[in-house]
Amino acid sequence: MSTNTRSLLPLAEARLPLYAGVDLGGTNIKAALVDDGGRIVAFHTEPTHADRGPEDTAARMGRMVHTLAHLVGIATSDIAGVGLGTPGPQNLTTGVILRAGNLPGWDNFPIRDRLAAHCGHDVTYANDATAAAYGEFWVGSGRDYESLILLTLGTGVGGGIIIGDTSIDGAHSHASEFGHIIVDPSDTARKCPFGHRGDLEAYSSATALKARAAEAIEQGAGGALAAAVRAGEELTPILISREAAGGDPLARELILEAARWLGIGIVTLMHTLDPEAVLIGGAMTFGGEDAAVGKAFIERVRAEVQARAFPLLAAQTIIRYASLGGDAGSIGAAGLARRGVAR
Amino acid sequence: MSTNTRSLLPLAEARLPLYAGVDLGGTNIKAALVDDGGRIVAFHTEPTHADRGPEDTAARMGRMVHTLAHLVGIATSDIAGVGLGTPGPQNLTTGVILRAGNLPGWDNFPIRDRLAAHCGHDVTYANDATAAAYGEFWVGSGRDYESLILLTLGTGVGGGIIIGDTSIDGAHSHASEFGHIIVDPSDTARKCPFGHRGDLEAYSSATALKARAAEAIEQGAGGALAAAVRAGEELTPILISREAAGGDPLARELILEAARWLGIGIVTLMHTLDPEAVLIGGAMTFGGEDAAVGKAFIERVRAEVQARAFPLLAAQTIIRYASLGGDAGSIGAAGLARRGVAR
Repeated sequence: MSTNTRSLLPLAEARLPLYAGVDLGGTNIKAALVDDGGRIVAFHTEPTHADRGPEDTAARMGRMVHTLAHLVGIATSDIAGVGLGTPGPQNLTTGVILRAGNLPGWDNFPIRDRLAAHCGHDVTYANDATAAAYGEFWVGSGRDYESLILLTLGTGVGGGIIIGDTSIDGAHSHASEFGHIIVDPSDTARKCPFGHRGDLEAYSSATALKARAAEAIEQGAGGALAAAVRAGEELTPILISREAAGGDPLARELILEAARWLGIGIVTLMHTLDPEAVLIGGAMTFGGEDAAVGKAFIERVRAEVQARAFPLLAAQTIIRYASLGGDAGSIGAAGLARRGVAR
Repeated sequence: MSTNTRSLLPLAEARLPLYAGVDLGGTNIKAALVDDGGRIVAFHTEPTHADRGPEDTAARMGRMVHTLAHLVGIATSDIAGVGLGTPGPQNLTTGVILRAGNLPGWDNFPIRDRLAAHCGHDVTYANDATAAAYGEFWVGSGRDYESLILLTLGTGVGGGIIIGDTSIDGAHSHASEFGHIIVDPSDTARKCPFGHRGDLEAYSSATALKARAAEAIEQGAGGALAAAVRAGEELTPILISREAAGGDPLARELILEAARWLGIGIVTLMHTLDPEAVLIGGAMTFGGEDAAVGKAFIERVRAEVQARAFPLLAAQTIIRYASLGGDAGSIGAAGLARRGVAR
């Protein structure tokens, strides 16, 4: 349990009112109290304990909202709005988690209304990646743009679409499932963990990166990455990134290949949505543009876009990393509550 | 020049006010005067004569608006709004055609304001395929849905996105360029006429269908289609459709292959936008669902979606043909004017 892992804005300097945003993940729940300018005045995180069941987690999320208020010495009723982001698939209209891959057994749970009951506020409900996209749009690296898409690279590939202060959620709450756009239609294409063949998640997720590395090493690849794994190090995206930074050709090639596929997917999204900016976020961003590997990754993405997109779009569409890191979801959920859209 | 090629609603039965919609194509200009329920009360079409230059065409489009008013015996000033759809690429914010492929020499022409000057009305400006999508949304086969995408299959592949009475136009007026989403990333993929490799237009346009048929026949394919072409018949999508209806295996295979690629593209669009309905329109719809070939085509599209999309989306997303035919663009342009969005 952590309440002070980041620099917080003192309440005296906050622009009122305050909004609470809760970001529910498979491993952790993050809750942020943010001011009207999107700055965090209180933060609290604790393990999800999904195995205890959804009602237990909903009750603890409710208590977390009370804790945020307590941390800055206000009443929970003084919070102007509460937002919640959760993994999909979900029904945003009814506020129900349908069947979240990393929340086993939580089928058809009315999470929005249960959190509302526990925290005493109506709750604005969003897809977690859409909440993150809104956070970046509001106060992150997307704050200068009127429209953006965010692709989140992690265990899977997710995303969000924000156009003019509005998120695109879809008729069945399934918009911006960018992990499942098709980038390779062939019968021999890779499969994502959901069994979809040739989708972006099968090529540009951390899961895919690890799988490709494992295959290459199994087939006898040499170099520092392969040696480290054969010596017993756990094969993780962080290890691959570290070895790429150290110059290992296999690690570097695997990362640039993930970038190439991501670029192909982004071209399709640009020709569909034509956003002002495309942001890349999530856990697998290789240290961002200031790190050598992160820079090589995003430049490979941009090169693929240059090669394939309409020249006008290739020249004018911004492609950059997201900036809020793991706070994007909770800040964005608070921002969506602030926007005051009742779902 | 034609003013009476369809059944028109008598003015006495029209729900006022009336709106004019102009659909500018490379070959013809279509102009419709529609009532508040989207029903046509007057229609007029004439050749574009793009070679006479854009100002000449703009002046004639202005006169066409006056003609529509004259046809029903009202003053042009009684028209409540005028809408215009043109091919892209364009700048919808400034009202400029940037460089339309089928309007050679029209670079950077301020078409919106020139039509406004000639007809005496402010003009609502849209992409032609987006206007068609809005027409289908308003009074066509999309009228029962709150969100839809339209894919138009013709010389190229175009499209429009309508979500809750709003079109998605993009930051650079390049949204819904569905012809240029990537469906085959391989280095050996086909190219569209713009030189983009592996995009939907390279597989599911009339141009692509003809090119594939020509290649097959050149490589010695047999059957009725090949025989007809070798006997001197012009190779057109209509001929291919006719021979498919007659049972020719090559013609049938080519059409179903175009459908398969279209289905792959639609899966990507469903996972991006999650519309309530996906409509297929344009010149290349093989007689629609009531015709054997049209039915086989759309069922092949649906089968590809069933095989690849999230089960919930595969089960719930409507896939059907558009219903307004060649009138969708002019009706939709009028509808966009009615919606009263100033661009």
